[in-house]
Amino acid sequence: MNNSVFLAEMTHKEYSEKVAGDNPVVFIPVGAIEQHGYHMSMNVDVILPSAVAEGVAKQVNGIVAPPVVYGYKSQQRSGGGNFYPGTTSLDGSTLVAVIKDILRELLRHGVRKFCLVVGHFENYAFTVEAIDLFLREARMLGVDDARVMAFSYWEFCDDPDVLKALYPGEQESWAAEHGGVFETSMMLYLRPELVNMEAAVLHSSARFPVYDMFPAHKDWTPEPGTLSCPAGSSAEKGKMILDDCVAGITEVVKKEFA
Amino acid sequence: MNNSVFLAEMTHKEYSEKVAGDNPVVFIPVGAIEQHGYHMSMNVDVILPSAVAEGVAKQVNGIVAPPVVYGYKSQQRSGGGNFYPGTTSLDGSTLVAVIKDILRELLRHGVRKFCLVVGHFENYAFTVEAIDLFLREARMLGVDDARVMAFSYWEFCDDPDVLKALYPGEQESWAAEHGGVFETSMMLYLRPELVNMEAAVLHSSARFPVYDMFPAHKDWTPEPGTLSCPAGSSAEKGKMILDDCVAGITEVVKKEFA
Amino acid sequence: MNNSVFLAEMTHKEYSEKVAGDNPVVFIPVGAIEQHGYHMSMNVDVILPSAVAEGVAKQVNGIVAPPVVYGYKSQQRSGGGNFYPGTTSLDGSTLVAVIKDILRELLRHGVRKFCLVVGHFENYAFTVEAIDLFLREARMLGVDDARVMAFSYWEFCDDPDVLKALYPGEQESWAAEHGGVFETSMMLYLRPELVNMEAAVLHSSARFPVYDMFPAHKDWTPEPGTLSCPAGSSAEKGKMILDDCVAGITEVVKKEFA
Amino acid sequence: MNNSVFLAEMTHKEYSEKVAGDNPVVFIPVGAIEQHGYHMSMNVDVILPSAVAEGVAKQVNGIVAPPVVYGYKSQQRSGGGNFYPGTTSLDGSTLVAVIKDILRELLRHGVRKFCLVVGHFENYAFTVEAIDLFLREARMLGVDDARVMAFSYWEFCDDPDVLKALYPGEQESWAAEHGGVFETSMMLYLRPELVNMEAAVLHSSARFPVYDMFPAHKDWTPEPGTLSCPAGSSAEKGKMILDDCVAGITEVVKKEFA
Amino acid sequence: MNNSVFLAEMTHKEYSEKVAGDNPVVFIPVGAIEQHGYHMSMNVDVILPSAVAEGVAKQVNGIVAPPVVYGYKSQQRSGGGNFYPGTTSLDGSTLVAVIKDILRELLRHGVRKFCLVVGHFENYAFTVEAIDLFLREARMLGVDDARVMAFSYWEFCDDPDVLKALYPGEQESWAAEHGGVFETSMMLYLRPELVNMEAAVLHSSARFPVYDMFPAHKDWTPEPGTLSCPAGSSAEKGKMILDDCVAGITEVVKKEFA
Amino acid sequence: MNNSVFLAEMTHKEYSEKVAGDNPVVFIPVGAIEQHGYHMSMNVDVILPSAVAEGVAKQVNGIVAPPVVYGYKSQQRSGGGNFYPGTTSLDGSTLVAVIKDILRELLRHGVRKFCLVVGHFENYAFTVEAIDLFLREARMLGVDDARVMAFSYWEFCDDPDVLKALYPGEQESWAAEHGGVFETSMMLYLRPELVNMEAAVLHSSARFPVYDMFPAHKDWTPEPGTLSCPAGSSAEKGKMILDDCVAGITEVVKKEFA
Repeated sequence: MNNSVFLAEMTHKEYSEKVAGDNPVVFIPVGAIEQHGYHMSMNVDVILPSAVAEGVAKQVNGIVAPPVVYGYKSQQRSGGGNFYPGTTSLDGSTLVAVIKDILRELLRHGVRKFCLVVGHFENYAFTVEAIDLFLREARMLGVDDARVMAFSYWEFCDDPDVLKALYPGEQESWAAEHGGVFETSMMLYLRPELVNMEAAVLHSSARFPVYDMFPAHKDWTPEPGTLSCPAGSSAEKGKMILDDCVAGITEVVKKEFA
Repeated sequence: MNNSVFLAEMTHKEYSEKVAGDNPVVFIPVGAIEQHGYHMSMNVDVILPSAVAEGVAKQVNGIVAPPVVYGYKSQQRSGGGNFYPGTTSLDGSTLVAVIKDILRELLRHGVRKFCLVVGHFENYAFTVEAIDLFLREARMLGVDDARVMAFSYWEFCDDPDVLKALYPGEQESWAAEHGGVFETSMMLYLRPELVNMEAAVLHSSARFPVYDMFPAHKDWTPEPGTLSCPAGSSAEKGKMILDDCVAGITEVVKKEFA
Repeated sequence: MNNSVFLAEMTHKEYSEKVAGDNPVVFIPVGAIEQHGYHMSMNVDVILPSAVAEGVAKQVNGIVAPPVVYGYKSQQRSGGGNFYPGTTSLDGSTLVAVIKDILRELLRHGVRKFCLVVGHFENYAFTVEAIDLFLREARMLGVDDARVMAFSYWEFCDDPDVLKALYPGEQESWAAEHGGVFETSMMLYLRPELVNMEAAVLHSSARFPVYDMFPAHKDWTPEPGTLSCPAGSSAEKGKMILDDCVAGITEVVKKEFA
Repeated sequence: MNNSVFLAEMTHKEYSEKVAGDNPVVFIPVGAIEQHGYHMSMNVDVILPSAVAEGVAKQVNGIVAPPVVYGYKSQQRSGGGNFYPGTTSLDGSTLVAVIKDILRELLRHGVRKFCLVVGHFENYAFTVEAIDLFLREARMLGVDDARVMAFSYWEFCDDPDVLKALYPGEQESWAAEHGGVFETSMMLYLRPELVNMEAAVLHSSARFPVYDMFPAHKDWTPEPGTLSCPAGSSAEKGKMILDDCVAGITEVVKKEFA
Repeated sequence: MNNSVFLAEMTHKEYSEKVAGDNPVVFIPVGAIEQHGYHMSMNVDVILPSAVAEGVAKQVNGIVAPPVVYGYKSQQRSGGGNFYPGTTSLDGSTLVAVIKDILRELLRHGVRKFCLVVGHFENYAFTVEAIDLFLREARMLGVDDARVMAFSYWEFCDDPDVLKALYPGEQESWAAEHGGVFETSMMLYLRPELVNMEAAVLHSSARFPVYDMFPAHKDWTPEPGTLSCPAGSSAEKGKMILDDCVAGITEVVKKEFA
Repeated sequence: MNNSVFLAEMTHKEYSEKVAGDNPVVFIPVGAIEQHGYHMSMNVDVILPSAVAEGVAKQVNGIVAPPVVYGYKSQQRSGGGNFYPGTTSLDGSTLVAVIKDILRELLRHGVRKFCLVVGHFENYAFTVEAIDLFLREARMLGVDDARVMAFSYWEFCDDPDVLKALYPGEQESWAAEHGGVFETSMMLYLRPELVNMEAAVLHSSARFPVYDMFPAHKDWTPEPGTLSCPAGSSAEKGKMILDDCVAGITEVVKKEFA
């Protein structure tokens, strides 16, 4: 029908033939519905890992499963906090169950190579837990050769030139990123209609103490909900980031799943 | 930024202002990743209820939350069976948890009018359970005025002219629908690139006994995985169905949530 | 001791010898405690599938396990709604766990042929989920040959003469049945002391829209709680139904578990 | 319809009027399906607490809810062990959920006085847990006046004359009871057709060490599965026990729920 | 490093060599944080089974895993009741999960001989459930040779001389023990700084009816929270108890795990 | 009895009077049983946060609850990996339940100020989830004024002099810490008998790629299990760290809970 890398866009016949034939890596983007400031839509953490997964899948003849759309609760020091209207999150146990169920179903299809592409920092620990429980179940079902890779895609953005372009004069990095130049540039490249740079607010990067309070002090988060300022974002930079991540991930995927 | 009805495409500010101002109905499509024969992609049950929800939301100034992408296990007598590769399903408890968590988060945002748009028959019982548990939790949290509507969108396709166009000579109806003329026509209208009519297989409608066997007798399901034949599908018919469903749902939404 | 087909009425020795010797089908009635109008007791959905199971077990030399007495929440369009006092229901996860645990224990006893006799429409989806989870666990425990049948017993009432007797002039069927002529006749045959026809209320069959509202509009349900009128019920008709169901089920049980 | 004390045998109207009018105590027998030796059926732990509950309910104008039929796993030192075929038990979490769900539903009906009549020793701890979780939920739902009584019914058999009749020469008591003279006599009184004294095996009372081994040493349990010998059982003794228990329980129920 | 029997005080190398070499019994104390009257600290049920486990482990060259510190809810007839401030308890499902997880991890390390040393009566049923679920999981993981012992340590205190010293003139025994002479003497021997005999209150042993009420009648429990009087406690008696328990347990551990 | 800050070492009377009088902060150390190389015991992550909590509690007149002894699974990039024998971890859902139960019980005692002192990096996300679920439950129970602080204690080690002493020439920090100079120094100060510096292995700090593989490549972890080399550790440095952390935490606890 088409040459989509997306499981959802294949027929079951196309999919099962590909799985049976190539033993492909199946990528699962793990996103979130989370506010990303006054200037961006709330599906950033779904769009970005999906684009990264698509890019890598095309390189390695892989398959991209539908993303996990809803993710774990936004934390103040990494995402502004879950108290914003619009941010729509799952309990940890729910997210673990979703990921585990998907992995178990893919295993049933014959898949043995899995790659979780996390697009929302707060998902990571629960993704890891889901993988661990999945592998335990797989062993119970008599399958010993399943192998799973997991990462937060932005950690592969390590090209010095890219980093310098993104963070020219400062010691900033994506460590303080939430709705800043990193994510905004990628969105400008991938889905510009969901970004309104005129609504972006200039503010210095958020500085948090080294502890959390619950309920949160809402005023610790910069008022727009972003943790660093998106000023200077551009589609060009977004492309650089995407290319850097795709290249880096492709390399390790090839190496690990050779 | 844009005038999207989709929560995911709004900023948190746009969303929260709309919720605070209009007390809008929020629609949640509840889909599935399920094989739909040799001629269609596996995201049919996500695309169709999303389109219906979008259509209604535009009529009633509502909001469409991101769909529940993965749904409950396909059953042989309604969807061919869960044994097909590609069909990727959640356990019942997981689906219940996902829907309940989403409802709870929307409640926190201030939403009080909810509408579950089910696009996959097997989801219905678990959607109902999620709603019941959600309302119990809402009461525990001191909220007494939440109201929830739920339906399988196809039940609103009841215009005799539409039904005659779809099922001209026979006693068929959408009761035996899975990948047949109903869904295929809608896909041809909404996402024609995901349909390949040349791969459609002519076969008579599936006839099942009135019981289930587990593990399933795979040969009870027509070989392509569809339960009735998609022959005769057209985008025009798809538009008729969509319009009929949107009109019918709009009417009851207005009536119930006035 | 006796020649009971009921597991509960056997000694463990009688039971284990029968299981070891005959590899019998074990039937599990899955009922509910649910209002059935002003004229009947609330254990209808336990009594009827138990009688059906007993009838079939006697034909196929099977065993009837104790019924699941409490079932899933009554839904308005199939049972009037769960808001009635007296209707006493389990959460979905609880019902799934009960059925799964029973199946796992029977498996431990050596049983490999299971038949779930559902007597309450709302139980069906959760019964299916329990079976699916059970079979997964059975595989984990190294058992591959367990086979499970499931049905709603009334779907086997298909003898045209019986149907004509039950629904003489109209297009009604058991589709709108809840406390109507179908169930009432069976109760009059099986447990007449639990039926008081004088308290039965004449009313036309319930007509529901194709959606649900939660909390329910209580006035959508006919005031007595029945969905169709029990007038015309008789023990004779009840015997016809029971015989028809037992015959039909016996046939498929023999066929499937030969 | 009838004057039954059993919720299951009332119409919803009879039940709701009684609950609204008298604020009655609702009794819930908590039983088990468990082997009781070569001479008795496996429903002993359902029948006996149901009879006790019925007896008390008649004295205090109470209601008896349907029993919890399946209970917790038989333990070797109190019931012989769960390894017997026929003994069909629930996981602890399942039993807790069943009891909690029933209590929550009764609360919804307006009931505020609950009495759990445990008929199987191993159920007790899980019954208590269910009550505790139920009361927490009740508080969350804004109900502060629910009160719950729980006991193992046999602890009310304390009339010295009865005890002397049951255990004439020895230091035995119901502490070592499982399928012995206590339960057997009650069954002979209540359901003699389910007892076959000719199959009863003479053996001395089981003596266990003060620890458990898992998996169990099966040979620690006397071969028939009973822990003390049923010789000397009689319907007359059964009536004495039942009367003694009913009298004692009636007294404390009246006192606590006055 | 040291010759500790405590897993927590070993290096992973010391531990893994011991497990691989000796196939040792691993002991897991299962305690609680529970009030023990005006005269003792709230960690009694952790300290005592840990000391017993240590004593036995030294005799059989075993290993003591870190204790389960928080246990199940105190019950009025065995521990005074959970309504006391300071008593800090887990839900039953949580305690089951903790014990099961620990057993599963030890199994992964290669341990096959497990001994649960319960120090809090109310833990026992949940400990048993955890063991049963663990053994089921072990079988699913392909391990068939795990064996688990469980007991409440005080049941091994059966030396007539010790019992006479503890309960000189009366018919009391540890059956009514909670914060009485048994536990207080052991604490005086093991951790005298946590006992203040001057704060001990003279009172007669608690007498409870044979049923429970929830919420509890707080005044059923003697005011200090102890169920029997600690007067007459001494470190010497504590040593006698400890020695008696260690000796008895050592004997059965050697016998069962030879 | 004593002036302990430890809940476990108080009587219930001492504890309840303190809670009622001072509204104190209650600290809960959240540790783990995890290998820490060839030179240290496996209870490091319990001992260190307990000591920090004790130090702060003494400054602010707080209370230290018993630690959560078993924690979440060790991850390769932060703790070497969970594949080591001896590392004994809980599933995520179990850890969440334990922490939530403890918080709920403390709330019942009247505590409103809570501080989670995390001593094992992998616990953090699950600790946060437990707090979020706890606060939801507290609201359901009608309590709105509970406030919870959480942190990983080592993040408060920020005195430049201390950091220079610990990491003299390099760019290292506690970011790569697991069994290195940071933890080893604290153990040498607090529990020197559990450290054997002679067994410490010289190795360069672990370098991991930015992704995880499951099952882990065991050889990614330095052979002893430590991630950085403990050489140069001293009790003096340990005291500096402890003092720095206690001072920093005391300051924010006073500020937040004034």
